[in-house]
Amino acid sequence: MPTYTAPLRDIDFVLHEALKVSQADIPGYEDLTPDLTGPVLEEAGKIASNVLAPLNRVGDQEGTSLVDGKVQVPNGFPEAINVLREGGWTSLDLDVDYGGQGLPKLMHMAAGECFSSANHAMVMYGGLTHGAWNTIFAHGTEAQKHTYLPKMANCEWFGTMNLTEPNCGTDLGLMRTSAEPQDDGSYKITGTKIFISAGDHEMGDNIIHLVLAKIPGGPEGIKGVSLFIVPKYLVNDDDSLGERNAVRAGRLETKMGIHGNATCEMNFEGATGYLLGQPNKGMSAMFTLVNEARIGTGAQGYCIAEAAYQNAVAYARERLQMRAVTGPANPDGPADPIIVHPDIRRTLMDQRSFIEGARVFAYWCTMQADRVSRTDDAGAQGLLSLVTPVFKAFSSDKGYEAATDAQQVLGGHGYIEEWGMSQFVRDVRIAKIYEGANGVQALDLVGRKLGADGGKHTMAYGVMIKGLADRLIQNEALTDMVGKPLMAGLGDFQSAGQYMMQNGMKDPNAALAGSTDFLHLMGHLTMGYMLALSAEAAQAALEAGTGDAAFYTQKLLTVRHYFNRHLPMTRMHLKRIQAGPETVMAPDAAAF
Amino acid sequence: MPTYTAPLRDIDFVLHEALKVSQADIPGYEDLTPDLTGPVLEEAGKIASNVLAPLNRVGDQEGTSLVDGKVQVPNGFPEAINVLREGGWTSLDLDVDYGGQGLPKLMHMAAGECFSSANHAMVMYGGLTHGAWNTIFAHGTEAQKHTYLPKMANCEWFGTMNLTEPNCGTDLGLMRTSAEPQDDGSYKITGTKIFISAGDHEMGDNIIHLVLAKIPGGPEGIKGVSLFIVPKYLVNDDDSLGERNAVRAGRLETKMGIHGNATCEMNFEGATGYLLGQPNKGMSAMFTLVNEARIGTGAQGYCIAEAAYQNAVAYARERLQMRAVTGPANPDGPADPIIVHPDIRRTLMDQRSFIEGARVFAYWCTMQADRVSRTDDAGAQGLLSLVTPVFKAFSSDKGYEAATDAQQVLGGHGYIEEWGMSQFVRDVRIAKIYEGANGVQALDLVGRKLGADGGKHTMAYGVMIKGLADRLIQNEALTDMVGKPLMAGLGDFQSAGQYMMQNGMKDPNAALAGSTDFLHLMGHLTMGYMLALSAEAAQAALEAGTGDAAFYTQKLLTVRHYFNRHLPMTRMHLKRIQAGPETVMAPDAAAF
Repeated sequence: MPTYTAPLRDIDFVLHEALKVSQADIPGYEDLTPDLTGPVLEEAGKIASNVLAPLNRVGDQEGTSLVDGKVQVPNGFPEAINVLREGGWTSLDLDVDYGGQGLPKLMHMAAGECFSSANHAMVMYGGLTHGAWNTIFAHGTEAQKHTYLPKMANCEWFGTMNLTEPNCGTDLGLMRTSAEPQDDGSYKITGTKIFISAGDHEMGDNIIHLVLAKIPGGPEGIKGVSLFIVPKYLVNDDDSLGERNAVRAGRLETKMGIHGNATCEMNFEGATGYLLGQPNKGMSAMFTLVNEARIGTGAQGYCIAEAAYQNAVAYARERLQMRAVTGPANPDGPADPIIVHPDIRRTLMDQRSFIEGARVFAYWCTMQADRVSRTDDAGAQGLLSLVTPVFKAFSSDKGYEAATDAQQVLGGHGYIEEWGMSQFVRDVRIAKIYEGANGVQALDLVGRKLGADGGKHTMAYGVMIKGLADRLIQNEALTDMVGKPLMAGLGDFQSAGQYMMQNGMKDPNAALAGSTDFLHLMGHLTMGYMLALSAEAAQAALEAGTGDAAFYTQKLLTVRHYFNRHLPMTRMHLKRIQAGPETVMAPDAAAF
Repeated sequence: MPTYTAPLRDIDFVLHEALKVSQADIPGYEDLTPDLTGPVLEEAGKIASNVLAPLNRVGDQEGTSLVDGKVQVPNGFPEAINVLREGGWTSLDLDVDYGGQGLPKLMHMAAGECFSSANHAMVMYGGLTHGAWNTIFAHGTEAQKHTYLPKMANCEWFGTMNLTEPNCGTDLGLMRTSAEPQDDGSYKITGTKIFISAGDHEMGDNIIHLVLAKIPGGPEGIKGVSLFIVPKYLVNDDDSLGERNAVRAGRLETKMGIHGNATCEMNFEGATGYLLGQPNKGMSAMFTLVNEARIGTGAQGYCIAEAAYQNAVAYARERLQMRAVTGPANPDGPADPIIVHPDIRRTLMDQRSFIEGARVFAYWCTMQADRVSRTDDAGAQGLLSLVTPVFKAFSSDKGYEAATDAQQVLGGHGYIEEWGMSQFVRDVRIAKIYEGANGVQALDLVGRKLGADGGKHTMAYGVMIKGLADRLIQNEALTDMVGKPLMAGLGDFQSAGQYMMQNGMKDPNAALAGSTDFLHLMGHLTMGYMLALSAEAAQAALEAGTGDAAFYTQKLLTVRHYFNRHLPMTRMHLKRIQAGPETVMAPDAAAF
């Protein structure tokens, strides 16, 4: 069975050396010293390894079921969720006035990495709740906040998000779920939602559904969508639980992966709901949750890849097969461990360099989110908004590739379920789809984010990359390895941006035919930036002779591997963009 | 539920226009006119759509089980196999003296494409038998051939290949299964084999296992491996079935996909076996089967991708979501079909251009195999041997990507098992692993095939590409689109080959660290060649005005899409190769 060990050394490096978080000018970050982060994350790592990881395959095999109208989760899940609840892991970064502990989001991300690597299907129950908490916190009335948030903070009550319907996912304007106003100011919600993660179960006393629905007579399409709080059990005025609301899980979906999570069709049959935020402004309220979820979904990509990588490495060290081409490395054994073979090493380094870059990327995004919520920095908001679709899609696309590559290391055993590698691939697969399919992320990036606020944030992004490239070009040890290639990648980005501007105006299809390529170009460039920060820190540590030279030397090799073999993909994506839309747009629909 | 329709128009184009098979100078090919191939493949397509495809999901859901020592296959599989048997589909290309119909292998490939797209797990039962048939035909005594082949030709008896053991897959020299010589000239086979596809079932009267084992006292390692025929039921002298042999399925594996195929652990407990071919020459005899199986496995990649693509297109035409960016395409409906969106079209064209190129590649390989078996052409043998690992690994790698991309088109529905897209991904995944994992194919290519016979076949390959590129550079309509880019790809191939020669001699790791990149470079270049042949034929047909202009116009667009967006990957792979082995070889095993 696969195991998982939290990569605490690398997490520590990312926090304190690559990103130097305690020196970042963000209120609260001054406390994020190694003295604080170290013990917290060590404990998170222990729970991940000892409590969550052993239940990962259990969740895959047992799945969820609907028995007598109640959703059964896999054995052990309720107890494990209790461990998270009792350790305060569900509320690390939530507001202290509403049951939280007030730490930066970054601590939630770093601890969450460990949990997600260990058992993503389980983590989702709390993850959705966390998103719902933030949405109510941002848009709820004081009364709503007091009623729901303290109990949701520790998952005494869980939360969900209900967007998709059978006839609409991306295009929520087609929504049919309705919300009839009642005399008491509440609404009656009627309709069917599908693909609702953690939609129903018995692990908490209540489930607070956030539901998008249309108030009859409102504006057409997406502008007539409002957001509602629909509790599974209604809450009495004294905060005790009242009657069962008319919302039920109609069926559970049989999915390719994340079997441990209950993916429900939810039927609302005149359920009582309460408006959250303004009428007809449901989409923008829901986007509080969606944006957080997109960073989390991107993280799922590299987190599951990390777990898959660890198990591929363990297998490659143990499995004896053939001799090293340069002579036996294990002369007393019947063969050498396959980790001696160049192609095995090549694929492991591909996986590793992606994972380490994506970790910096994830934490960096979360720093921006902290900066936004703690300082109202419009620049950080713009930058985060620009890179969110990039991180979501790039990290899930590459995480899927990396997990597939890790599975491949095990050969035939990788295909057999009991080895657990198939589960990693099947579980990470959903990250490319949910929270907006990756093609929709590319559309969001090219169609909306690139030109937002007159392209200001795109320019700021370029300035940020250029600043680091300039600095590293001056750094003798890193100029050829990192500085110049990063600048070359930036050049490809600028050429691609130019193509988009020059062609997208007269023919939007010209821009959109290259949208996924643009997203991946930017993904590689941002990874280059994150890994360049890492190289700079590692080089400085080596020069300072602070010890742990093996770690920093390996870090430089890992960065070099990415810069040699992956960053140059920016040029390939540029070529594809410049190839234009004709072969894409010319065929008749019937010709496909 | 997914459906499948045989792409008969494209198959016809590949056979008669791109490859012009009836004009190829191969005995028997003169009969392969459209009059013959058309009706045969039309019938194959009908069986694929109506008999095999409806059982594809049944096989996935029911899987196989071991009940009272007998392997149960999914409902409907025995009857469907009967349809194939009675239609003579299992013996199309087998020798007429031993129960076959004597057609070229190419007809087996083209019909097999339809069957494999429709239900690969089912097709494998006959596929393994076909390989075993060819191995006995090539290496058996006249008595062995008469005993086994006629009944195996129509799958009255099935066949299997038994190579892998718990401690060895790639490195068969570590094998422990033994073969003790008996006084009557037979052997007692003892050992355990794993991952045996179609290892046991009750669909035929007998199963003829081909088993690699070591005769005690023979040479060490791979040079001491011999091949044996081990029937499930011994065959009496009068060809009637005798006693049950001591070979049994010990367990069935639970796999990521191909659930309909029984993947068995086979226990040989002093089973009676008969030497096939020469003692200690088992590997070279088994390679008859392996080489055929590698082409078949490569084909699995594009065949399953074809089925996935068809269902993605169907969904994209039906699913209404958002409006085309240039204005409503379906103004009377609530939204436009998603096939209007550029990124959906881009991914469909990616899938399609791969599939159409791989089809030519597969058929071209099979033509070489026919040339070899019908003319003993050493050049064709060398060329086939060179490209076999390329086709196997490239088509399975890209087939997996294409199936994943097709699944993505369905968004959340793609992740739900009942839509069937997950099955395509899970089923095609094995093609990257079995018959030699793709990394082993790259090792075979770079370590063995490139330099075989003094590099003669590699040079012949280059001459072949150059010949076509030269000709198309002279073709005004195709010079920029196809001729020059093909020549540029060839240049990348030559530079990569030069790197391998110059560096591989002094440091084999330098060559092997780039082996997968070399394979993919050559994969793209060969795809370029195949699609260039297609473009040449399409252009000629358009100029001749023979009708069906829509088909040829679309064909040119598809080729152009690949040349614009995928063929340039040769440059990227070259860069990776030239980056050298340091980041791959320098890390300690402990540092991963």
